[in-house]
Amino acid sequence: MLNDNHPIQAFNAPPPRHIAALDLGSNSFHLVIARVIGQRLQIIGRYKQRLQLASGLDSQHNLSQAAIERGLACLTMFAERLHGFAPENVRIAATYTLRQARNADIFIGRAEAIIPYPIEIIAGTEEARLIYLGVAHTEPEHDKRLVIDVGGGSTELVIGSGFETDIVASKHIGCVSYHQTFFSDGKLNHANFAAAQLAARQKLETIANQYKQLGWQKVLGTSGTIKAIRAVLIAQGHHDGVITQPRLQQLITTMISYKHQQQLVLAGLTPERQPVFAAGVAIVSAIFSALDITAIHFSNAALREGLLYDMEQRFRHCDIRSQTATAMAQQYNIDMLQAQRVKNTALALYAQLPLPATDKGPNLTTLLAWGALLHEVGLSISYPGFHRHSAYILRYSAMPGFSVDQQTLLATLARFQRKRLKLDEMPPLTIYKRKQVYPLIRALRLAVTLNGQRSTAPQPAISVSVNNEHWQLVFPANWLATNTLLAADLATEQQYWHKAGWKLTIAE
Amino acid sequence: MLNDNHPIQAFNAPPPRHIAALDLGSNSFHLVIARVIGQRLQIIGRYKQRLQLASGLDSQHNLSQAAIERGLACLTMFAERLHGFAPENVRIAATYTLRQARNADIFIGRAEAIIPYPIEIIAGTEEARLIYLGVAHTEPEHDKRLVIDVGGGSTELVIGSGFETDIVASKHIGCVSYHQTFFSDGKLNHANFAAAQLAARQKLETIANQYKQLGWQKVLGTSGTIKAIRAVLIAQGHHDGVITQPRLQQLITTMISYKHQQQLVLAGLTPERQPVFAAGVAIVSAIFSALDITAIHFSNAALREGLLYDMEQRFRHCDIRSQTATAMAQQYNIDMLQAQRVKNTALALYAQLPLPATDKGPNLTTLLAWGALLHEVGLSISYPGFHRHSAYILRYSAMPGFSVDQQTLLATLARFQRKRLKLDEMPPLTIYKRKQVYPLIRALRLAVTLNGQRSTAPQPAISVSVNNEHWQLVFPANWLATNTLLAADLATEQQYWHKAGWKLTIAE
Repeated sequence: MLNDNHPIQAFNAPPPRHIAALDLGSNSFHLVIARVIGQRLQIIGRYKQRLQLASGLDSQHNLSQAAIERGLACLTMFAERLHGFAPENVRIAATYTLRQARNADIFIGRAEAIIPYPIEIIAGTEEARLIYLGVAHTEPEHDKRLVIDVGGGSTELVIGSGFETDIVASKHIGCVSYHQTFFSDGKLNHANFAAAQLAARQKLETIANQYKQLGWQKVLGTSGTIKAIRAVLIAQGHHDGVITQPRLQQLITTMISYKHQQQLVLAGLTPERQPVFAAGVAIVSAIFSALDITAIHFSNAALREGLLYDMEQRFRHCDIRSQTATAMAQQYNIDMLQAQRVKNTALALYAQLPLPATDKGPNLTTLLAWGALLHEVGLSISYPGFHRHSAYILRYSAMPGFSVDQQTLLATLARFQRKRLKLDEMPPLTIYKRKQVYPLIRALRLAVTLNGQRSTAPQPAISVSVNNEHWQLVFPANWLATNTLLAADLATEQQYWHKAGWKLTIAE
Repeated sequence: MLNDNHPIQAFNAPPPRHIAALDLGSNSFHLVIARVIGQRLQIIGRYKQRLQLASGLDSQHNLSQAAIERGLACLTMFAERLHGFAPENVRIAATYTLRQARNADIFIGRAEAIIPYPIEIIAGTEEARLIYLGVAHTEPEHDKRLVIDVGGGSTELVIGSGFETDIVASKHIGCVSYHQTFFSDGKLNHANFAAAQLAARQKLETIANQYKQLGWQKVLGTSGTIKAIRAVLIAQGHHDGVITQPRLQQLITTMISYKHQQQLVLAGLTPERQPVFAAGVAIVSAIFSALDITAIHFSNAALREGLLYDMEQRFRHCDIRSQTATAMAQQYNIDMLQAQRVKNTALALYAQLPLPATDKGPNLTTLLAWGALLHEVGLSISYPGFHRHSAYILRYSAMPGFSVDQQTLLATLARFQRKRLKLDEMPPLTIYKRKQVYPLIRALRLAVTLNGQRSTAPQPAISVSVNNEHWQLVFPANWLATNTLLAADLATEQQYWHKAGWKLTIAE
């Protein structure tokens, strides 16, 4: 009997798939490349560049020109390494700094010319989920664990067991931003440490009790800050590398004795980490107090590993996005039979469109399907204007597995599913273009109209032909004559298209 | 043994309470006055003025000056009858036309000088619930019933049994608005009837299947349109007064034979109903087709009776608003322990305020309590900016028992519970004044800050003193010194107040 691991298969099997994840963090950019072997990943390359992108963010949340150039230079280098990778094998995620930057679209627009893969800005809670996913695959224990990632701009805190998360949070606490706010004078004194610690505790206040009530058996820390603290502790003789509050207090006392960051000399501390180390130590110490933590153990996994495992899971069709959609469908009492009908009609129409592959990829088809499944979430708020309620929920909810741009696209589809096409109200998208989005909107609107009566009767075969902004639907002979209500709804829909500068023709 | 109905009690009991409800409808204004006897209501006065307010609404949704004057003249007359009624014994509800009118605030502002009771604009679904409540008290059967109210601007459709509703809807279909759209040429012909019927069916399309699946044993029709059709049918010899589709079709054929509304002579039709009768008949006929109705029986109850019974229920503390809040707390997984803590703190602070009675009525206290209970509904969407999500949900949800203005106030409290006080983003309120709302916002914010750690530890006794926009909180001695996190949060809060032009002082 042959199984997946039988060596004979390996001879006939195609070469293993290579996948790559790129994490555009606030402190560093990381690229990691892996081979997919069965259901395991074998990491075959790691690349890191420390850019301190967060330090380029001004008080108006604009990313400086210098920071943009640093980021693009790094991407140019990474793009060489990714040469030849198929689009479905690369995932690029941007976190805190690009999430915050008002001019993120400028960076992403220029980056697209350098590195031919979409850059997804992911929400803080999505970042937290992916970090946990990376840790869960790397640390095989099934204890309940608290995972903490102190980044350059944000800190993620997750409790989970096995591969499941119980609670995720992302807070605006980061070693680069806290360095700028509390240690910009370079002084290592009680006042600066205390101010940074108090600010971090204020941010953690709202979640502290809930986390402590849930509890955990072990605390794992990821990311550069925790790794650096561990290295210093080991150099000081704490060979287990475990971070505890007494050891941190001792470390702070030692650091204060140096008075100024430029005078600081700590064995184990790398020069590139030195500038943001005090802020990082203050943050970790505040987390200890806020959550009554006894000890933090370092875990080498992080966001980039999470991205890899997430890609690999999608590939194997156990997609976290299904869980998200199912949970939303339950919370908002979606009529799933109607949602399925609309989805089937929308996909049937979309499949007929003679669009170039760049404007109609599998990714867009998938998003049309999710949009159709979730287009009525807003009904649970109230019927009047429910398309706007749906858009609000889809835009602002924590939706594990979807990027910010994907959520915005889903919200756009929901917003324009019915009523007037006020296209000037369309929110800006970074990855998707209007020429990609309009066909999705049209397919969904028509599917909603065609299923307006929520009937279980089978839909007729409808063919679509397209000439730029002009769509023609062809119905079976005499079908509209016996469906006068639908004919009236299509006439209303024609007017909406006309007012938007589009054209819809109905024929039999 | 004495019981509530024993005649001896009546001698010693205070005189029965008189309550009044005023329904500012799109076709007529109605005033009804009742005596509360035990748990029953005895109607002792009914007044009606037909104003056709909806006909004064232009295409920009502005109410004409003439319509405003008609409405105010009617209120002047009703105000005389209400002279001497205590505020808690009068309820005034405005429906479709004032819901739609962009300049409703002008009408309501002027009305307040004439009739000294708040005018609540109620949502369509709230209107539907109240109509059902009126019918449920008037028709004692416990069959599952469909209640239909065809008004001047909107039509409500409710399925329920006993006092409970299963489903409510309100659609923009009304005899005054449909008269203007489809019969403004005065012609009684097939084309006009068919266009009005098709438009009504398009509006009903989305709910028709759901309603038919739920089903009913009996259909009750309320409001002037149904009453008028019944009167005409009776005059034609249908002595049971039951409305059926064949009878309606016959009626339409008869009406078309007159060719023009001005030539129409129908026994049983009052002159004031005549202008909008054709539109009303077209709408009712469309409802028959859309929902496959066999027969409609007239019920004399309507919105005004619902308003009376709703007042009486609140008085007896079986408040529909509790059911609404409980349902929302469940759907959005509110942390009820925290909500209760915030509510208790907010009410304790608010109770200490030395405000004049007009700025601090029991109504405002109650709304602060609801606002505190529901201020975290938005957390279920996501943590970042959850105060905005709470505000969105509270503003747009169907919330039985709350008026539009009350929902807007609850949304305002949620919006300003934390973070920057961008008071220029405050939505306009018709009943409530800023000098009434600001103390509620301040009390809720402070309660949220004071309970920021979600701790079960008892709160200290805090006293408040107020001097216009300047509030001072006095804590027990040394309390803040041992609660440094709270002290830091209060310092942040002081800055928010300062930027809004308010002042917060903390003392021990």
